[in-house]
Amino acid sequence: MFFEGSEKKAEIIIDAGRLSLLTDFDDAFWAQMVEHCQAKILSSISNEHCKAFLLSESSLFVWQDHLVILTCGNTRLVNAVEYFLQAIDPSLVLQVIYQRKNEHFAYAQPTNFIDDVKLLKSHTPGKAYRFGEMYSHHNYLFHSNQAYQAEASDKTYELLAYQISKDASEHLTDEGLSVTDIREFLRLDEWLADFELDDFAFEPFGYSLNALRGSDYLTIHITPQAHSSYVSFESNLNLIELTPTLLDILKPASFDLVTFNAEDFMSQAQAHLPDFYISKDLVESVLDNGYCVNFATYLRPQIEFGQPRRLDLAGDNYEL
Amino acid sequence: MFFEGSEKKAEIIIDAGRLSLLTDFDDAFWAQMVEHCQAKILSSISNEHCKAFLLSESSLFVWQDHLVILTCGNTRLVNAVEYFLQAIDPSLVLQVIYQRKNEHFAYAQPTNFIDDVKLLKSHTPGKAYRFGEMYSHHNYLFHSNQAYQAEASDKTYELLAYQISKDASEHLTDEGLSVTDIREFLRLDEWLADFELDDFAFEPFGYSLNALRGSDYLTIHITPQAHSSYVSFESNLNLIELTPTLLDILKPASFDLVTFNAEDFMSQAQAHLPDFYISKDLVESVLDNGYCVNFATYLRPQIEFGQPRRLDLAGDNYEL
Repeated sequence: MFFEGSEKKAEIIIDAGRLSLLTDFDDAFWAQMVEHCQAKILSSISNEHCKAFLLSESSLFVWQDHLVILTCGNTRLVNAVEYFLQAIDPSLVLQVIYQRKNEHFAYAQPTNFIDDVKLLKSHTPGKAYRFGEMYSHHNYLFHSNQAYQAEASDKTYELLAYQISKDASEHLTDEGLSVTDIREFLRLDEWLADFELDDFAFEPFGYSLNALRGSDYLTIHITPQAHSSYVSFESNLNLIELTPTLLDILKPASFDLVTFNAEDFMSQAQAHLPDFYISKDLVESVLDNGYCVNFATYLRPQIEFGQPRRLDLAGDNYEL
Repeated sequence: MFFEGSEKKAEIIIDAGRLSLLTDFDDAFWAQMVEHCQAKILSSISNEHCKAFLLSESSLFVWQDHLVILTCGNTRLVNAVEYFLQAIDPSLVLQVIYQRKNEHFAYAQPTNFIDDVKLLKSHTPGKAYRFGEMYSHHNYLFHSNQAYQAEASDKTYELLAYQISKDASEHLTDEGLSVTDIREFLRLDEWLADFELDDFAFEPFGYSLNALRGSDYLTIHITPQAHSSYVSFESNLNLIELTPTLLDILKPASFDLVTFNAEDFMSQAQAHLPDFYISKDLVESVLDNGYCVNFATYLRPQIEFGQPRRLDLAGDNYEL
């Protein structure tokens, strides 16, 4: 039995001037929306900028004029996006961005990225890209063809860590781990001290966290099991600056950085990334919607032989 | 329109003492066998050790007591293996090994590795492994559970090169390239001088070669198109020693070495591999059938940003 930690992600930007603010939509609406991708709202926190929902599969953040939703597992996020697009006047939608990363168990997903894009294109025309190689870490991105231009100050950082250290994986799969234990392991008081936190420890393991501080947000999702461990961070905080701490905690074999409008990605990476990580892939593009997107994969060179993975051939829910 | 260069591979070892030699089977039998995986025999060469068939999709090598077949594209090699296993007395089969590597367009394959293994297991019990990470280069291997023990002298080397240099890709996709042009590009007279060659230049591009010299064999298959370029070498020659030449010709962004019974893999790799390639993955295992299998992935660190791949959303034969 495996769990797909990789998230799908959608961002929708609306013309809030002409609509009631997204933050005024009631919780029932968002509950309905996430139900369309087989997710449930577990809890929420909010401040004057943002309402952050912790989901049974990842997170939903709602600001006045845009929303970001991430869902993992076998969810069909694109159906939740469709629900939203059908619920509001299409002329109010300024931009739709839909991302999907390389999945660990892609063969077990109900759809692939192109299937999803075909559905999105029935609502809005757009362009689709793959950042990174098909047979390695990569990130697919679709965006609608619209006049919208992102502001340079609209920054997003994603840090996606793969194969965390044996110690980290073993600790995070300990039975009966509390959110306090996990907060401590993640040293949140060191680098996320003054945020309001909303987190959940799943059974038998797995962890999700939403965090807000004024206009800043951050979310963490942990799939800790050996062989398919994966930890994702997303924030408008500069996660490149935080890599020394985050990589020290998790010690992943490899990680990706995906940024929107990060300033001078290369200089920042050189300044902050531990130098024993090697850059495997570097992709950059300024999209028609004004976002400068960077995708980069880093890995630690291997020096010792590992064992092959023995495949269990019984049952239908097999691991490839 | 894309082409899957990645090969599936099967090796079958039989008890030749109790059977007429495999080399005595007539060509019609092999033509029938390869037809079961939608391939055709294009040509063949032979000597006292081996008969080598060049196929419309890769190669078939037949020795007295074993065969190796590689097929690329969307072929269902496992069906050809099944045809063979049904054609001869099961008690004569000493060992079945079936390999499948990470595919570029895995979603477009008619089956995945586990599907194939389930079919094989209906003929012979066995074990299955994944060498390398699921979301990166990897090589699946199934072998039958039998008393057979490989001799230490039974060595096989595979070199699988990905994303060859722009120059190499452009040259090898030139229109009207002859086999002589490609032999020259591959500098075959430098490192494969005294082999008998059988090769084919496909339309609009692509190249396959079988080569024999006494008991030595070598095969090359080239899928040269940009974004999914892939070149494979397989031989009982020590390809680790040949990497300086082969990597200089192709300058791939990354490559895998897969070896069976290579002596002291690590020392050889350190002695011969160009040091600007970094080892990303190292896996080693001595299988129950006596083969020591090594799998290793190497890559060149990237220092410049590339462009994302724009995805064409029209049609059903899409590239992800």
